[in-house]
Amino acid sequence: MKHISSRDNPFYKRLHRLIDGKRAGEAVLEGVHLCQEWLRHKGLPQAALFDSSKLASGGELAELARALPESSCISCEPALVRGLSQVGHGQGVYFLVGVPELSPPARIAENCLWLDRVQDPGNLGTLLRTAAAAGIAHAYLSTGCASAWAPKVLRSAQGAHFAMAVYEHLDLAQLRQRLDVPLLATALQGGEPLYDAVLPQRCAWLIGNEGQGVEPSLLDLADMRVFIPQEQGVESLNAAVAAAICLFEQRRRCI
Amino acid sequence: MKHISSRDNPFYKRLHRLIDGKRAGEAVLEGVHLCQEWLRHKGLPQAALFDSSKLASGGELAELARALPESSCISCEPALVRGLSQVGHGQGVYFLVGVPELSPPARIAENCLWLDRVQDPGNLGTLLRTAAAAGIAHAYLSTGCASAWAPKVLRSAQGAHFAMAVYEHLDLAQLRQRLDVPLLATALQGGEPLYDAVLPQRCAWLIGNEGQGVEPSLLDLADMRVFIPQEQGVESLNAAVAAAICLFEQRRRCI
Repeated sequence: MKHISSRDNPFYKRLHRLIDGKRAGEAVLEGVHLCQEWLRHKGLPQAALFDSSKLASGGELAELARALPESSCISCEPALVRGLSQVGHGQGVYFLVGVPELSPPARIAENCLWLDRVQDPGNLGTLLRTAAAAGIAHAYLSTGCASAWAPKVLRSAQGAHFAMAVYEHLDLAQLRQRLDVPLLATALQGGEPLYDAVLPQRCAWLIGNEGQGVEPSLLDLADMRVFIPQEQGVESLNAAVAAAICLFEQRRRCI
Repeated sequence: MKHISSRDNPFYKRLHRLIDGKRAGEAVLEGVHLCQEWLRHKGLPQAALFDSSKLASGGELAELARALPESSCISCEPALVRGLSQVGHGQGVYFLVGVPELSPPARIAENCLWLDRVQDPGNLGTLLRTAAAAGIAHAYLSTGCASAWAPKVLRSAQGAHFAMAVYEHLDLAQLRQRLDVPLLATALQGGEPLYDAVLPQRCAWLIGNEGQGVEPSLLDLADMRVFIPQEQGVESLNAAVAAAICLFEQRRRCI
């Protein structure tokens, strides 16, 4: 197995750049669970990098390595691997994977998630994870959302990306024309209480920016606005939590 | 107004220590919203520190300062204030507040949240924010939970702490004896589907650690276990999201 012992190694530098910034077409997955999920849903990675010391001690890392062609596996000095980690105690495994840039379909007729400028990576990942658990397989992200394949988003989403089609950098107002199901927005004002609303079996759930909600001109394009009745005098729900309550209320009624 | 221009200033160093670590009895609130919520729910802070340049430009900071006795306000060099900030672009205002250490009541008869080793500060904050929005005013946190008054928890909770009683460092198995309402655990296995379960009007909702769930011996003390039916073949819900769906399902039925 090829071994990396210098931080000047071109492959190591490439992983570093992918983790720090954004680059279309490729992503780095960190940790056993995400890598296992990739194998299960998507097949082989372009390459896999292992902490040489952790790999030598067997366990889950050795098992992952056995599932890959040896030519795609690279071992790496532990000190360098620590420089890649996004978490306190990384598990010592990274997959480099190709990420298809998807174009939205000509007509959108499934239950789906529309995200308008959701900026917090943790929120974005949680929204995708929740949508996947609710059986939603398509997410449409506006320009101004966090980058869907950034490490923090991947970590919060726990593999939801691999079970969904995630479309990015969209003009949602334009995309509205392709929508064959109602557009439902969560809003704090001017909406129907969620539990009184007649929810369609399939719709596009429109969730807005954490602080500002859905952009007003986009909100005007919604067919229905709903709000979640809550205790007075306290802060409203976090965007991902509000979305979860809506998606699972729809699922409760429709399944 | 007193002015701080050195990082050796004792008050500045005290704030720094409180932000970096944990110390019982005191907490630092960052940002306009948290400070406003403190004023609204709790009254005056022990002291308030303002970015001198932002304070001079008026707006929300000047408004906050006007609501406080001048003797409790301190202005500070912008460069030093940036050293305190937990977010990218801080708003330049901090409250030092006293935090009462609460002892649990002898009998617990209200709807409440029980958290077993919830370690992620963002998750813990979101759980408190969600509980407050669901009308729950008491949270009982086990030893092993993140520190409730840490800056990241405060930020995610968006002021929920001030509308709730948050009890920390508890042995939940012992506390079970004080409980006069059923203990309901969210669990992945061996539970009733949430939507089929007969939910009590009041209960203690027991939410477990992000990775491991509720500790098995504690789970054995639950009166009922519920799970949220979800799509097969994808990751289960995040702990805070699962809790939100349960709390709002109870609220939907009971209100």
